[in-house]
Amino acid sequence: MTANSSLVTFLDDLASERPTPGGGGAAAVSGAIGAALVSMVANLTIGKKNYEAVREDLEAVNAKAELLRAELIRAIDEDVVAFNSVMGAYGLPRATDEEKAKRAASIQAALKDATLAPLRAVKACFDVIRLSAAAAEKGNLNVISDAGVAVLSANAGLRSAALNVFINAKAIKDRDFAEKQIAEVNALLAQAAEMTESVYQTVRTKIGS
Amino acid sequence: MTANSSLVTFLDDLASERPTPGGGGAAAVSGAIGAALVSMVANLTIGKKNYEAVREDLEAVNAKAELLRAELIRAIDEDVVAFNSVMGAYGLPRATDEEKAKRAASIQAALKDATLAPLRAVKACFDVIRLSAAAAEKGNLNVISDAGVAVLSANAGLRSAALNVFINAKAIKDRDFAEKQIAEVNALLAQAAEMTESVYQTVRTKIGS
Repeated sequence: MTANSSLVTFLDDLASERPTPGGGGAAAVSGAIGAALVSMVANLTIGKKNYEAVREDLEAVNAKAELLRAELIRAIDEDVVAFNSVMGAYGLPRATDEEKAKRAASIQAALKDATLAPLRAVKACFDVIRLSAAAAEKGNLNVISDAGVAVLSANAGLRSAALNVFINAKAIKDRDFAEKQIAEVNALLAQAAEMTESVYQTVRTKIGS
Repeated sequence: MTANSSLVTFLDDLASERPTPGGGGAAAVSGAIGAALVSMVANLTIGKKNYEAVREDLEAVNAKAELLRAELIRAIDEDVVAFNSVMGAYGLPRATDEEKAKRAASIQAALKDATLAPLRAVKACFDVIRLSAAAAEKGNLNVISDAGVAVLSANAGLRSAALNVFINAKAIKDRDFAEKQIAEVNALLAQAAEMTESVYQTVRTKIGS
């Protein structure tokens, strides 16, 4: 499992000419880094005497961030499974009409899975962005820059995963299905961009830069 | 060494209430992910028959990306060293005037190092953004989205490392030194934003989204 690789090995695998892990896995890692940093800000705020008023809020933020981190770690490997499934379907025999029909149906089913997997990553990254906003607003001022790094990582993950949704949706014949996923991603991209810049500016203002 | 941790352990350490690894380490990882994906695009382009004309360009891109990845992996641990050095200086004794003067000088020296370390990461991420632009322009169309993920990761790394430059520069008494580093980062932030959006749009156009 990719997530058990060392960081250096993961980066070597990413750089290699093997197709996975690739951008989809990297997107999930970026999102997971964002979720982890939200937890860091929460953990360094909870229990500090000047932050008693936000303790419960940040406990809830941390609980959600931990779930999202686990989901995004799973998404690293789901990306590999989805990619292999599409490649496997393209590799099916196509000598007879029956085989051709079966292959075409398998490709379409695999492409739908390979569109929904990065879409789940997009949504998870979006939720991390929302939590980053809460961390930047309420977190310990000493580690507020980590909330800024969290939102940047999560938004990079979101925009990266979005590219995989677009690529796979493009080859789907069921256009109603495909356009629905594309529209959802475009809406989230726009909202995420606005929230990310707002959180980054909040952080810059708080650190006086 | 953090870079030898598994991905899951790195994320656990990031999320914990220990101050390192934190945003600085995460910034370096984002930059390294960008560099690795530039190499991936190069490795999946070099040797492909439709891309003979760009082979030499992409070999040069890959060589630079590998150096930048190694530099950014080192930066993960340099961030920890710089942080510990600042904390160590703040912890020095201050009973006598002599001790106070020595402590103040140590803090200032450590803060300068802790400003220059993330500044090096900012510059390395900027170079990764430039290489991503070349990868998006010349790379194999089948993996062009990975050039898009590369630029997003590198820019998130750049903006994240920038926050650490700002924080540490703020506490430096040598304002000429501090303002010089801040101005350099602000200039790179602006250029990086423009280049990143340009590469992302190039990639979206090429994948037809």
